[in-house]
This record gives sequence, C-alpha cells and structure tokens, in this order.
Amino acid sequence: MSEQATGTKAGLDALSAARDDLDVSFDAAERAEKSHDWWMRSLIERRRDDGGPMATAVARPRSADAVSALLAWANDNKVALVPFGLGSGVCGAVLAGADQVVLDLGALTEVRSIDETNLTVTVEPGRRGSELEEILDEAGFTMGHWPQSVALSSVGGWCATRASGQLSTLYGNIEDMLVGCEVALADGCRIRVPAVPRSATGSDLRELFLGSEGTLGVFTELTFRIHPKPEHSIGHCFTMPTLEAGLESLRQILRSGWRPAVTRLYDAVEAGRNFSYVGDGDRPVLLLLGEGARPRVETEMREVAAIVAAAGGEDQGSEPVDSWLEHRNHVPSFDDLLDQGLVVDTIEVAIGWDRIGELFETVTRDGTALDGVIAMSGHVSHCYTTGANIYFTFVGTQTDMDGALALYDRVWNLTMERTHALGGTVAHHHGIGRVRKRWLEAELGDAVDVLRTVKRALDPNGILNPGVLVDVD
Amino acid sequence: MSEQATGTKAGLDALSAARDDLDVSFDAAERAEKSHDWWMRSLIERRRDDGGPMATAVARPRSADAVSALLAWANDNKVALVPFGLGSGVCGAVLAGADQVVLDLGALTEVRSIDETNLTVTVEPGRRGSELEEILDEAGFTMGHWPQSVALSSVGGWCATRASGQLSTLYGNIEDMLVGCEVALADGCRIRVPAVPRSATGSDLRELFLGSEGTLGVFTELTFRIHPKPEHSIGHCFTMPTLEAGLESLRQILRSGWRPAVTRLYDAVEAGRNFSYVGDGDRPVLLLLGEGARPRVETEMREVAAIVAAAGGEDQGSEPVDSWLEHRNHVPSFDDLLDQGLVVDTIEVAIGWDRIGELFETVTRDGTALDGVIAMSGHVSHCYTTGANIYFTFVGTQTDMDGALALYDRVWNLTMERTHALGGTVAHHHGIGRVRKRWLEAELGDAVDVLRTVKRALDPNGILNPGVLVDVD
Repeated sequence: MSEQATGTKAGLDALSAARDDLDVSFDAAERAEKSHDWWMRSLIERRRDDGGPMATAVARPRSADAVSALLAWANDNKVALVPFGLGSGVCGAVLAGADQVVLDLGALTEVRSIDETNLTVTVEPGRRGSELEEILDEAGFTMGHWPQSVALSSVGGWCATRASGQLSTLYGNIEDMLVGCEVALADGCRIRVPAVPRSATGSDLRELFLGSEGTLGVFTELTFRIHPKPEHSIGHCFTMPTLEAGLESLRQILRSGWRPAVTRLYDAVEAGRNFSYVGDGDRPVLLLLGEGARPRVETEMREVAAIVAAAGGEDQGSEPVDSWLEHRNHVPSFDDLLDQGLVVDTIEVAIGWDRIGELFETVTRDGTALDGVIAMSGHVSHCYTTGANIYFTFVGTQTDMDGALALYDRVWNLTMERTHALGGTVAHHHGIGRVRKRWLEAELGDAVDVLRTVKRALDPNGILNPGVLVDVD
Repeated sequence: MSEQATGTKAGLDALSAARDDLDVSFDAAERAEKSHDWWMRSLIERRRDDGGPMATAVARPRSADAVSALLAWANDNKVALVPFGLGSGVCGAVLAGADQVVLDLGALTEVRSIDETNLTVTVEPGRRGSELEEILDEAGFTMGHWPQSVALSSVGGWCATRASGQLSTLYGNIEDMLVGCEVALADGCRIRVPAVPRSATGSDLRELFLGSEGTLGVFTELTFRIHPKPEHSIGHCFTMPTLEAGLESLRQILRSGWRPAVTRLYDAVEAGRNFSYVGDGDRPVLLLLGEGARPRVETEMREVAAIVAAAGGEDQGSEPVDSWLEHRNHVPSFDDLLDQGLVVDTIEVAIGWDRIGELFETVTRDGTALDGVIAMSGHVSHCYTTGANIYFTFVGTQTDMDGALALYDRVWNLTMERTHALGGTVAHHHGIGRVRKRWLEAELGDAVDVLRTVKRALDPNGILNPGVLVDVD
C-alpha cells in the first residue's frame, strides 16, 4: 500500500469512527465491484489484465451530513472521490484507482415525500429507479422516466449523466423532470435549488450539476416532477417500406405537435432481430405508444396512424408494442457476451432531421464493413421537433482482448467522427465519462474551456471524479 | 469628466477609429436614453433628481467580431460594460453610470437562417421580437414566444432575462426555445453551444448564460425552436364563481396533460377592469386558447371546457379571448402614469398549487391595505403541472417622488416577503436586475455563492454589468 493510501485509510478510519452515519469498507471484493461501471472498454481491459484499477476504500454515507463530512475531509486532504450510484453507467464515469475513494451513495434511498397537489416526489440519490416507480405506482403516480437500466440505475445517476427514458417523447428527459435539488459541493457545503414551478433567478443551477458526472458536486436530494398514472394507452406497430419513410413519419408527427410517449423506429437489421414475426420480418419497424387522458390518446393515435400510413406504413396491430413493453429491459450482460467471443456495445448520438438518414446509413454501412464487425444496426427512440437520437448497436467477434479493444476503438471512432462531421452531438443520453472526452472537445470547441473554468472554480483541489468529462490542468 | 472617463473616451475613440464595424456615441441624449431600462423605481428616482446616472458612452457594434473587440478592450482596461438590447426590462438590469459604457446590441439584427426541416431560426441578439415573428410568419412559422413586450424587446434580451410569453403553457418559456447559441465572454473569446436536438455533454451551457442578465457573457447569436403556424385555434372564456375555482380548474387541466397555449385567470378586480362586459363584470375571468392541429385543439378545448364547467365556470363564449388577443399588448407607459399622479408596477412570482390561493389572497388583500395603494390585483398567466405564476399589479397615488419611492418599496417588500415565506420564487419571468437582489439571496441561500463563484471565474475583472443579479466582493 502506498504512503498516500495508508494515510487515506487512517483518515477514513478516524472519520468513520467519529460518525455513526458513515461506513467505510476496505474489503477487496467490494472495492473491486464498486471501482467501475459497465463501460465495455474497461471490462475488456480488466479481462486482458486479469484485474483492473481498484480504489483504496469504499465510503458509504448514511446521511447527507455524512456526505458533507466525507467531502470536507477529502477536500482538506486532497483525496479524490469517485461518486457511485448503482454502477450501471456505460461510459467509464466510474473508474476508481489506487489512492482514490469510492463515494457510494447506495445507502441514501429515502423517499422523503410525494406531493400529490404539486405533483413532485422528493427522494435521496441512491434509490433504485424501478423501486421509486413502484412506490409512485402504489400512490397512483409515475415519473414517466423509464431508461432501459431502470432496475439497475439510481435516481442520482440519472441526474449525473443526463439520462433519457423510453417514454421521453411525452415526459421529457431528466432535465425536464428535475424540479429542485440539494447538492454537496467539494468543500462539503450543501446548497439547495428550490423546487418551484419556474423562475428567472439567474443561471439555472440545476443545469450546472445535471450531466456533470460527479465532477462539480454530489446530489444529496432530488425533487422530480410526477404525473397521475395515465388513464389510457394505445400502442400501434407499423412496418415501413424504408428507414427514410419511418424517419419522415416521425418528423411529421413531431412537427404536427403530437407527442406519443414511445416513438421507436428500428432499422431492418434490428427489426429482423427483435420483430421477425412482424410482417415479412425484413423491413424497418415503427412502434408508437400514446398514453394519458383517453380522449387525447384516442385522437392522437388516430392522427399519427394516418401520418404513418401516408408515408407507406403498414399497420401491424398493437401486439408487437405489448411484446416490446414486456421484454424491453431484457439485455444480455456484456460479460456474458465476452464469454461467447463477442464484443458488443451501444453508441447513442443525436442529430437534426435533415442529416439523420445520412448519419444512420453511413455509420451502419461503414461500421458493418469494419474488420471484425458482424453487424452494426440502429434504432431511433427519442424524438424532438428538431431531430432525434440514433442508438447504434454493434456486434463483433474477438479471439483475444487486444483484438477486442482494437475492434471497439475502430467502431467508436468511426461513429464519433461521422456524427461530429455531420453536425450531430456525440452523446444523446449516456454522457461523456471517459469514452467520449476527446469528442466532447471536438463538439464544444472553446466552450470546453467554460466547463474547465467552472470545474476549477467549484473544485479547486480537483477531488471530484478527476479524469471524467474534461481534463483540468 | 473624470480622469477615468477621459481615458475611456480616448480608448473608445481609438478602437472605433480602427474598426468600421463599431460605432461609438458620446451624445448626451443617446447616453441618457440607453443608460436605463424601464425599472419603475429608477424612473421615479430620475424624476426626483431631475436626471440620473448616465454612461460615458454608447458603443454599438455592427458585428460579433466588434463585440469581441470591445469586450477584449474593456477587459484589458477594466472598463465596465452594460449590455443593452432594446431597453424594455423592468428590473433595473440596465442602469449605466459614469465610467461605464453601454454595449448597445441594437445593430445586430440579422436573421441568418430559417431551417424549415429542423424547425429552427438563427438570429442576432438585437432583433426586435415582433419583427422576428413577422419574418417567421411570412415563411409559415412561429416561435410561439409572445411576451407583452414583444414589440419592445429584443431576442437577446429575452434570453438574458429568462422571458416568458403569453402562450407559454403550450410553447414553453425561453429556455425551452433556445436550441443553441454563440456567446462572447468577458475576454472577447466567443464560444458556441451547438444547436442539436438534445445532448448529454456535461453542464448545459445555455442554462448558464440564460438569465445571467449580461453578467457572465453577451449573446451574439441565438438559434431558437420554431413551429409551423397552427392550423387551428379555439378560444374560450369563462366567469368563475371564485378565484379558487379558477385556480383549481387550471390545476386540473395541467395535471390531466392538457396544454392550452393561453391559460389566464384574472381576479375579480382585474376582470372588472378589463372584462366589465363579461357576465356581471364582478367575478374572476378565465381565458383559454388552444392552438395547433385541428383534431388536437378540438379535443383539448372540449375536454378543458368540461373541467372548467365542473368547477362552476360559466361559458362566456370566445369573444373576450379575441378582444384580449387584439388589445393584449396595449399598456400605458409608466411615465404617463407618473404624470397622472399614479405609481404603478407589476410584480411576477411563482408558487406551487398548494399555496397559490393563499399567496394570491394575502398579497392582494394586504397590498391593497397599504398606505397610498388604491388597488392591488393579480392574474395567473403561466401554468405548470407543479404550480403557476401570479402577476400582481398595484396602483397607488403619489404627490411627490419621495412618497412614490416609499410606496413602491412598501408594496415590493410585502410581495417579496410573502412570496418567499410561502415557498414561492420571487421572480417568474422578469429577472432579478437590481430590484430583487436581496430576495434572490433569501431564496437561494448558500447557492448564491455558486453564482458568485461562477461570476468571478468567468469575469475576473468584473467588467460585465456589475451590480446586477449578485454582488461580487
């Protein structure tokens, strides 16, 4: 153990001995488990190296005061903290090394209140998303935030990474849901952004911390918008003659002011993989799901169906939507896939409607042609009046981990380069972490310096998740 | 002229001589006109003092490069700049004194492009709002942003102050419209936040500069979301048995997922003033206007009418909505009112549904009881699932300007105190400027220090609109 690690251990021992709301673990298994998220590249590296970086300790506060005390201690002693929710990130925003301490927020799970009049829920950051939705469901409400990771991710993690859910076209993304918050700063001071309907009180501090991936502060309490459970829903599946026809349908739906909760368009490859029983199984598939007040949903789904039909969509009924709803979050683990000799990852980006077809085609075509790639496919799942995301998936084969890394980098580089060149954004909703840092620089240009300036000002000792999002100094 | 002012004048002369895209004026009338906005308190003070603070010069760039050059010069020479759009603010965010220079953005008016596919418009900051809407209208689009000041305010001013328009319940507020921007920083460097559908690329830099009232940077280009012009609209007016019944109707409309563009509830005082011909002229009046695709609007207005009727609303047809649409932006000037011996101002706040009735009642009742006040009334005009704004108006009499100031402060203090005490936000959409600075401190608590830290980091020489929003050092 290094001299620094020894000092860190002694300091944490003293800190946790003095507080009954702070647990500290030096257990190797726990440190190994919580020193990383599910970034595919780091999983490959860990296999190759038969292990990987590991934090000195896992500190687990059981109160916001303990979070503050831990931060103040770390700031005074210049010890780097790596905030950890439930570890479901896929971009390497959690990758704690020796001499670093994991700040495990998993014990902060209290659902403090459900405000049935103002339609908000106030919750601690470590609560699992699916559990929060279950509690809301029992009370007659929903947040409407359903990322594929909902059973694996924490509500604080959603905010730290700017998550999107599968119903985002109606309910919005996490920034549309976060009404107020409490944040612990690097020195342990906690600030509150009040939960009010809307205000004109300077910069929006919520938006400073949202997406900051633990580099500017640590969420200790979150107040989210909720909605009464929808009284009605209608699902509708179509096969589309071409991907372009599907994209054009979505563009028309959005610009006409309709907001179905689910707007998912799979290319022919993914449709064949997931909906082989729909139509001839060889064409793009569009899933739409409206939900809310019955008269609104009935009107909406009738009208959007007409838009899709006019673009050549063929009605395939509602069953594929029901099937998707049931199975939507069943995905194989990256580890299992590596065991099978595969390299798989997803890359989500977003771009305006004018270029989305071109980006979709060039990346899937040229990605599939890359050495070692079996298939590169995509779907659209989050739509806006201005454009939409593309969620690419690639599958490749590997015989060893060095080859797996090279393949991984080839596909990511291609996707990031093409997205940036066509004017898209390199990250729609998984964040930057470590995997996209240089592409963030390309996308933001000199604006990255503003992020750096703010980081230096708010975390002068650089203790908050260093190496993530932007490098400072 | 002070030594500093002499130096500033010489520096500006040299700068403008070297550039053909920068005009500088030392004309007293122009300096007087552009050294203030329409903050009522400063108007009273100027009357009392037979004049008021006045900037050394008005600098008027005709390009973004000239904005940068001016900023770089000011930063090097520690000269304070006061950004000025069209001067329609009402909170004292523009109040330039001797040794300061007005940065007049009024010559930057180019509408650079209308993107009919991605539904955006890109425009320079000095363009008048109503002119932009006319240009969009001719192309078949609307931004949907209709502040009462639309013919008096600039698009850059909207962003600097976090403006809201009368159709916000459907189209959102300015932060929902700004897709991308270019900002000139204190040192003259310009950064771009790309116009993309949505991204997870760290802190949202748009939200850092929105509402910052010229204290963190100067917008030099804005890309806004636009919409095809609505194919249909339906207006509906109701009289309500009580204000509470009107508030309850709005709460139910919002929580049921309906989004009429206009949701305006006037208390009995304002209804009597503006809609005396509606019903008996003595009850609260609710105006609703839906717009968009015909089937959506027809369904929506039928359903919301049923909600209002269930709360005791009596149908008064659509004519009052038409009348409001026609006259909505006709307001007497504060100067004319002062001439008539009156003191008039508006104060907008926002609060959750659970407390809105209490806040509305306590402020209008206790405000009306204040010495010198003839009437204090209010209406609700921006609704959310979580709550709504209240737009208070007070009318008082004055015999001299000292009395006018004392009256003004009594009413503002009462309104701010009650709003803060009940958990509301002290500013819904006019901003902070100078009038609300101490109430911003009360509302944000320690979070104000984050605004200060960011201000110091981005504007280390304190040249950007000092004295506005927060005081630093």
